[in-house]
Amino acid sequence: MLKFYYGLGTCSLASHIALEDAGLDYTAEPVDMKANQQNSPEYLAINPKGRVPALVTDRGILTETPAILAFIAQSAPKAGLAPLNDPFAFAEVQAFNSYVCSSMHIAHAHRMRGRRWATEESSFEDMRRKVPENVRAGFDLVENKLLHGPWVMGETYTICDPYLFTVAGWAKSDSVDIADFPKVAEHYRRMKERPSVQKVLTLYRA
Amino acid sequence: MLKFYYGLGTCSLASHIALEDAGLDYTAEPVDMKANQQNSPEYLAINPKGRVPALVTDRGILTETPAILAFIAQSAPKAGLAPLNDPFAFAEVQAFNSYVCSSMHIAHAHRMRGRRWATEESSFEDMRRKVPENVRAGFDLVENKLLHGPWVMGETYTICDPYLFTVAGWAKSDSVDIADFPKVAEHYRRMKERPSVQKVLTLYRA
Repeated sequence: MLKFYYGLGTCSLASHIALEDAGLDYTAEPVDMKANQQNSPEYLAINPKGRVPALVTDRGILTETPAILAFIAQSAPKAGLAPLNDPFAFAEVQAFNSYVCSSMHIAHAHRMRGRRWATEESSFEDMRRKVPENVRAGFDLVENKLLHGPWVMGETYTICDPYLFTVAGWAKSDSVDIADFPKVAEHYRRMKERPSVQKVLTLYRA
Repeated sequence: MLKFYYGLGTCSLASHIALEDAGLDYTAEPVDMKANQQNSPEYLAINPKGRVPALVTDRGILTETPAILAFIAQSAPKAGLAPLNDPFAFAEVQAFNSYVCSSMHIAHAHRMRGRRWATEESSFEDMRRKVPENVRAGFDLVENKLLHGPWVMGETYTICDPYLFTVAGWAKSDSVDIADFPKVAEHYRRMKERPSVQKVLTLYRA
């Protein structure tokens, strides 16, 4: 049985939705980010990085959203969440998720996690001022190059979709209006219609 | 035939070594980073992100190091560069590469790419001061938790190894002495003995 550690407002939402989409058997354990529970000794024993998500399996513990998403797809092949046996198509899925992880999530993180990369309050303010521009650049690329529609990879829903949905849900907090990106906005609306998304969101709104 | 775009001093080194390890047929095309060729109209038509690496295949163009590394492993299964049919072991490989990409590479990038995330010279200086601490934290985690030895995943060489080698090669420029991390230092030494690494490095020293 899988055990999934998640945190409200975090990128764990993507893997959480994918777990539902996959129909895998799992339990979900909230990590209280407001109380800094991710840095408690108990949680650091699970994930020494002090981050969510973490997925406890019978073989060991997995971290990092792109890795967990591909693991979920590979663990439930019948759900068809990734083109596992087509190296090029699978690489396109992974390239999308890698871009979300290392560019779009990082752009967003400079709004409230500036302390990771600098020390002075003036630097944090400077970073925060640039966040909307960088977040917008990410959605521009998604809108114009990466999102085939109706789903990220085209006609077939994949593990890219809950990840885009997750970062699209952060846009407003970064002063970016998702309505400026019609394909992304339509994708977001379509995601919210899915029962898997609705089920998981009830936890994230708690 | 694959065509691989690479840049000196960049993370393209990891995929470049993996292409050699895989024994795939490819040509290598340098992108002159000093002349900002990655932002030329010609290159932006290949990779609109203005980054290297990019891998041109007969199906289309792939970007993002973790995706390209997994594509190489999956395209040359006989080379055994990743445990493709073991979802948990493959996820561990991917989690390592995702951490290198979204944490270690990002930590390093704040030394000379501060302009991506801020505007003021004082912020760039502040970021640069914090780089050694963040780069060190990454190697600490690799040394103590992630690097099984002798290769990253243990007895078997995988697509994690050229990626670790690549970021380890940046440590000195970030004022971090790799000798402080004995397992990482030994891994770096061992990598340099490999013919695939030696062959690719002749290009990167040009």
